[in-house]
Amino acid sequence: MIAAKVIDNIWATRKADSLRGLKFMLVEVLGGIDKGRLIIAADTISAGIGERVLVCTGSSARRMLGQDDIPIDAVIVGIIDEDCTF
Amino acid sequence: MIAAKVIDNIWATRKADSLRGLKFMLVEVLGGIDKGRLIIAADTISAGIGERVLVCTGSSARRMLGQDDIPIDAVIVGIIDEDCTF
Amino acid sequence: MIAAKVIDNIWATRKADSLRGLKFMLVEVLGGIDKGRLIIAADTISAGIGERVLVCTGSSARRMLGQDDIPIDAVIVGIIDEDCTF
Amino acid sequence: MIAAKVIDNIWATRKADSLRGLKFMLVEVLGGIDKGRLIIAADTISAGIGERVLVCTGSSARRMLGQDDIPIDAVIVGIIDEDCTF
Amino acid sequence: MIAAKVIDNIWATRKADSLRGLKFMLVEVLGGIDKGRLIIAADTISAGIGERVLVCTGSSARRMLGQDDIPIDAVIVGIIDEDCTF
Repeated sequence: MIAAKVIDNIWATRKADSLRGLKFMLVEVLGGIDKGRLIIAADTISAGIGERVLVCTGSSARRMLGQDDIPIDAVIVGIIDEDCTF
Repeated sequence: MIAAKVIDNIWATRKADSLRGLKFMLVEVLGGIDKGRLIIAADTISAGIGERVLVCTGSSARRMLGQDDIPIDAVIVGIIDEDCTF
Repeated sequence: MIAAKVIDNIWATRKADSLRGLKFMLVEVLGGIDKGRLIIAADTISAGIGERVLVCTGSSARRMLGQDDIPIDAVIVGIIDEDCTF
Repeated sequence: MIAAKVIDNIWATRKADSLRGLKFMLVEVLGGIDKGRLIIAADTISAGIGERVLVCTGSSARRMLGQDDIPIDAVIVGIIDEDCTF
Repeated sequence: MIAAKVIDNIWATRKADSLRGLKFMLVEVLGGIDKGRLIIAADTISAGIGERVLVCTGSSARRMLGQDDIPIDAVIVGIIDEDCTF
């Protein structure tokens, strides 16, 4: 997984039908040589802008949504505790 | 997913049979440290050149097409709203 | 797989239900051009901070956990022997 | 998919049994920030050295070959038309 | 696949049970913009240190081992012929 910070909401009115009802957030990778990489992730745990999150990528992101034909390759799966320093 | 801009059409007359009928677009990653990466994505929602799109990659791109033996690893799955700033 | 060093624990109280009970560690890639990349990996073999580990990524990380709907894309799968120089 | 140029043949007499009969080509990524990345791809459409091709990567490359246990993660799946400028 | 050079053996006494009996090698990517990337790959064809090899990554590496729950994401699948220049 990747540690990232939630930057903004992403709105896409025209999209694949199977994506309807999902919330998309722009996240930015934190730390290391990938710092500053931008990813758009589906949010399943109501993350807020500014929060540090765990992002799961690839087929594991799709599989957790319980539908195997949904075009999702990144999902926010956890909020990193505020007092967790790294 | 990745936020990208549609740059051009890609034409390939000689291709795997299972790709016939699909439309291919060249997209360029927007923002972050991957800015400027080029990807060729199948287009399923009639994206136009110049539009900002959501691109899904990997096996999730293939699975959404409903055929598990199609050699596709990137699909345009949404158009980012024009008034969505990020 | 990737050779990495365990840097810290990652705590996330709010997370996907299927992640409960898993231990997450921040690891840093060792050597080569990816040196300094940060990954958050589930730990299945009680790795300690400072140890050099083998990290498996992608769907192979998820599959080893025996649940196909768990949003995990990186797992610590081995401890590199202390006297293994590279 | 990736746009790449075919650079050379790759010969490997000793290889996994399931790879026998496949033709391998060295391709170089064209354009963008990945320009100059080298990939070895199986060729299924008789691409020639110097041609610009579409390369599909990951599990989608393997699945198109109709055998799910073949260790292939990149396949040339199309020839970009000569008059296609990008 | 990736062209790489075998650099060293990797020894890990403590590891996931399903990895027992596998031989791990440190390989370094050859050429292109990924030159110098380090990967740890399982070796299935008795590659020697210094040899140039083909490395398959991702789920295709795992699937070739005939066990779908083994945490392997990279396998050496061929030895590049000595007289193959590229």
